[in-house]
Amino acid sequence: MRTEGLAINLATVRKQWGLRAAVEACARHGIRAVDPWRDQVEATGVGEAARILRDNGMRVTGLCRGGMFPAADADGRAAAIDDNRRAIDHAAELKADCLVLVVGGLAPGSRAIDGARAMVAEGLAAIVPHARACKVPLAIEPLHPMYAADRACVNTLAHALDLCDLLGDGVGVAIDCYHVWWDPDLPRQIERAGATGRILAHHICDWLVPTRDLLNDRGMMGDGVIDFRAFRAMIEAAGYHGPQEVEIFSADWWARPGDEVLSTCIERYNAVC
Amino acid sequence: MRTEGLAINLATVRKQWGLRAAVEACARHGIRAVDPWRDQVEATGVGEAARILRDNGMRVTGLCRGGMFPAADADGRAAAIDDNRRAIDHAAELKADCLVLVVGGLAPGSRAIDGARAMVAEGLAAIVPHARACKVPLAIEPLHPMYAADRACVNTLAHALDLCDLLGDGVGVAIDCYHVWWDPDLPRQIERAGATGRILAHHICDWLVPTRDLLNDRGMMGDGVIDFRAFRAMIEAAGYHGPQEVEIFSADWWARPGDEVLSTCIERYNAVC
Repeated sequence: MRTEGLAINLATVRKQWGLRAAVEACARHGIRAVDPWRDQVEATGVGEAARILRDNGMRVTGLCRGGMFPAADADGRAAAIDDNRRAIDHAAELKADCLVLVVGGLAPGSRAIDGARAMVAEGLAAIVPHARACKVPLAIEPLHPMYAADRACVNTLAHALDLCDLLGDGVGVAIDCYHVWWDPDLPRQIERAGATGRILAHHICDWLVPTRDLLNDRGMMGDGVIDFRAFRAMIEAAGYHGPQEVEIFSADWWARPGDEVLSTCIERYNAVC
Repeated sequence: MRTEGLAINLATVRKQWGLRAAVEACARHGIRAVDPWRDQVEATGVGEAARILRDNGMRVTGLCRGGMFPAADADGRAAAIDDNRRAIDHAAELKADCLVLVVGGLAPGSRAIDGARAMVAEGLAAIVPHARACKVPLAIEPLHPMYAADRACVNTLAHALDLCDLLGDGVGVAIDCYHVWWDPDLPRQIERAGATGRILAHHICDWLVPTRDLLNDRGMMGDGVIDFRAFRAMIEAAGYHGPQEVEIFSADWWARPGDEVLSTCIERYNAVC
């Protein structure tokens, strides 16, 4: 079965495998692109992680994740910016296509979503020069509105692209079907993202009905309600032909053997994506 | 404590009380406005429900709910339209300020959200003449995007107002903080709703962090992250000064004595709304 154009976000198998085992398993299944998470990279050591990825011939479609800018005070915001600069350094060392940014939700104890959004814009502006210097594109990932309070206060592609417009070169978006499939403005915003060269990543993951948990009940493609082929057609019409990256947070799939998860990703990628 | 301008959606105490007991309890707490659900009204009988509401001096801020237009086939869609016409009749008999519409999600087995949205627009157009004839305003309630698949494929105030623009007179929106608080376009759309006279209801309910269940873990005002005073200021600046209606789906609050729930609604209405 076709594996070209398929990438695996290593969160999908994070309970089964550490970075080395996950990368070797992907290679064994004929998958040539992965997106590791920082905790996985740091547990392995960034130099060693880079070597494992290179030795296995892996394209690194991204590093997950930077962001989380809002904080209760100036010291917290400065620490977040420092942390993002380190993430950019690691993304450069891994030769990642981009650093994926989950921008953060409300500051602790705050009800001011406008304030959080302002902190995000400031945090992004603060890290863009370093990202440009390191040649690491920053991919803002709009998250589903159900994460607005605690994970990301950028919840639509329109909002993410407005930020890109403000920030200029070196910034784009990671478009995850799971987060944006519901948006009535999606076709127009995908077109806009493509026209301005902002699409840096395309993640796939299905919306289950019912969804039993806000964070960890995401679905394998085909098990939910998203029309992946129609979605991908919009992405390609907008000029993006990069990998489709499977990123599934799921207590269900984390409980299965990693090889079964990868085989299923490949099957479904062929069947419905 | 002030109860003027406070309404109770009877879903908030649906596990504790039927319609009569809930209405009498509200009256006992000095609350003068309620919004019953159709199953409650039908269990009591619509004539008897109207009498109970009138005898207790209750304003009826709405009837919940019509909608649910998408269906697998033409017969199903026609049945939904018939059902909505009956809901309009009942809303008229109860002298409700509006019929609240939860428009429905994807048709069973379908992944076509555009198709669902078209069915919603068609269904609405089919019932508007009867609603006008009965002088029952239709209040389209945009639901949080996490309900797009299974409850309502109208998920932003902008989308609801676009439908109002298409449909003309006799149609407006029910704005529930819980569903729209996250929307970066909210201030502009509330202003638009007010300028076109479309605000028919204002519901209040808090977003909890963490939210443990997609449907039944909504919060009492003050227990979550929504800034109700800032929200209400936008609503009033847009020209709406009608009741704030507490609608909380919560396994937690449903497990407490109804009088405690109503007392808490009154306290929080005074403290944070």
